[in-house]
Amino acid sequence: MTSFVFRRQATVEYGHCDPDGVVFVARLFQYFDTSTWLMLEAVLGVRPPDFMATIGIVPLVDVRVKCLKPVRFGDLMELSSRVAEFRRSSFDVAHEIAVGGEPAVEGGETRVWAVRDKDDPAKISSRAIPGDVIERFGGAPR
Amino acid sequence: MTSFVFRRQATVEYGHCDPDGVVFVARLFQYFDTSTWLMLEAVLGVRPPDFMATIGIVPLVDVRVKCLKPVRFGDLMELSSRVAEFRRSSFDVAHEIAVGGEPAVEGGETRVWAVRDKDDPAKISSRAIPGDVIERFGGAPR
Amino acid sequence: MTSFVFRRQATVEYGHCDPDGVVFVARLFQYFDTSTWLMLEAVLGVRPPDFMATIGIVPLVDVRVKCLKPVRFGDLMELSSRVAEFRRSSFDVAHEIAVGGEPAVEGGETRVWAVRDKDDPAKISSRAIPGDVIERFGGAPR
Amino acid sequence: MTSFVFRRQATVEYGHCDPDGVVFVARLFQYFDTSTWLMLEAVLGVRPPDFMATIGIVPLVDVRVKCLKPVRFGDLMELSSRVAEFRRSSFDVAHEIAVGGEPAVEGGETRVWAVRDKDDPAKISSRAIPGDVIERFGGAPR
Repeated sequence: MTSFVFRRQATVEYGHCDPDGVVFVARLFQYFDTSTWLMLEAVLGVRPPDFMATIGIVPLVDVRVKCLKPVRFGDLMELSSRVAEFRRSSFDVAHEIAVGGEPAVEGGETRVWAVRDKDDPAKISSRAIPGDVIERFGGAPR
Repeated sequence: MTSFVFRRQATVEYGHCDPDGVVFVARLFQYFDTSTWLMLEAVLGVRPPDFMATIGIVPLVDVRVKCLKPVRFGDLMELSSRVAEFRRSSFDVAHEIAVGGEPAVEGGETRVWAVRDKDDPAKISSRAIPGDVIERFGGAPR
Repeated sequence: MTSFVFRRQATVEYGHCDPDGVVFVARLFQYFDTSTWLMLEAVLGVRPPDFMATIGIVPLVDVRVKCLKPVRFGDLMELSSRVAEFRRSSFDVAHEIAVGGEPAVEGGETRVWAVRDKDDPAKISSRAIPGDVIERFGGAPR
Repeated sequence: MTSFVFRRQATVEYGHCDPDGVVFVARLFQYFDTSTWLMLEAVLGVRPPDFMATIGIVPLVDVRVKCLKPVRFGDLMELSSRVAEFRRSSFDVAHEIAVGGEPAVEGGETRVWAVRDKDDPAKISSRAIPGDVIERFGGAPR
């Protein structure tokens, strides 16, 4: 578990909610995806749209979410995210959403550290995560 | 045109963009919808989820958007919204998104001021917009 | 108004609906966008993902929707779309959604006929719509 | 593992894809959610919107997805879903998306079988899943 924790706040929008008046589960993944992009920006100092051009891409290969209590239209969410584990060329992000000081949603992602083939952009290949990236997140160098 | 202008900033998220790397048009309507809810809260002092319980509902009946230049992943948007016209039981909202100081998207909505039938929530009926609501928005009373 | 009318059916999904239990307006634009892609495929015989590679792109510049009656979770929609007008390098699409035989939503789009610059994919330029495209849609050649 | 397998086909729409041209992960959960609703309709003979009124609700408490290969704009997906396990008042659904005959995405959901409190719709309580529901899915009665 690395030491850096990225935190942000967001309010649940009307269009994020389903007929039960709670956040539609698919939308929770968008919250988490956005948090990961913003965390990468905060730690590495690279704007998300530039990340792909200069560093590489971080496609999702595994995601999961556990709902502990419903999150509703207008709720102020406290989102926190951290890298749970760095491996050679992939990493896990752990997310949490709290509402009113109580955990409401737990999430996790596994992403690959990769680059696009210059001749065939549809082809991607994984890369070793640079040691200084791991250090910036407060992880022990390998 | 009323005098109150609601302003907010938002950054375009990865999941809002389409394969061309620009905001998917459908998403622009969600930006505008959220701005309208936040404007109602700013002017009337009622949290959006409480609005329906205490004041009524404001269903959309007509929306349009005109794209002047593409809005991309990571762009910081300046959104501004104001009520363009109050009629007896409906009103128009004019929205604008600027990026880098230049207008990028213009939008408009027509909404009805309505309440749900207590016995049959699927039935709604329009109501005259209260004069003090119009005054708070900086519109001339009728 | 061209003579070809593209028709498809779709059922409103749970995740398309808002807390009022009706289709969220932003989603209506996705229905229309998908209909336009499918109509282009039906008329021109080009799969949507290949369209961009072989013919060009058709970015939206103007869209609008008018809600005549609410469309709800589970409703079977009859969607019909046609090109309302071809101009030199842009065209209008008129959409309609009917539920239970009654018109529920009317929509319109204006799209540009364009290609990407080979050296700078972010740069696009409009092109004259080919005469045989217009004829295939049942429009009079210019 | 119950014996009934629900199958449907769907084509990836433009607005489902992210700037990498593949289905945005959040959208995969909407595909799965829709499959579950349609599976419940196919097995129990109750239209999704009527389900809530007559049987109860099935809120998601846990979802996960594993991406095996990218799913792109225009891909024809073969979706299959089945109940992996019934417990007293919750059940697991296993989903798979195949493209071109090869598995592309695996997903899972855990849902609760519940009803809303009549006096306070925001309050829900779990219920034992009826034995005949389990039998209709081809599961062994408890």
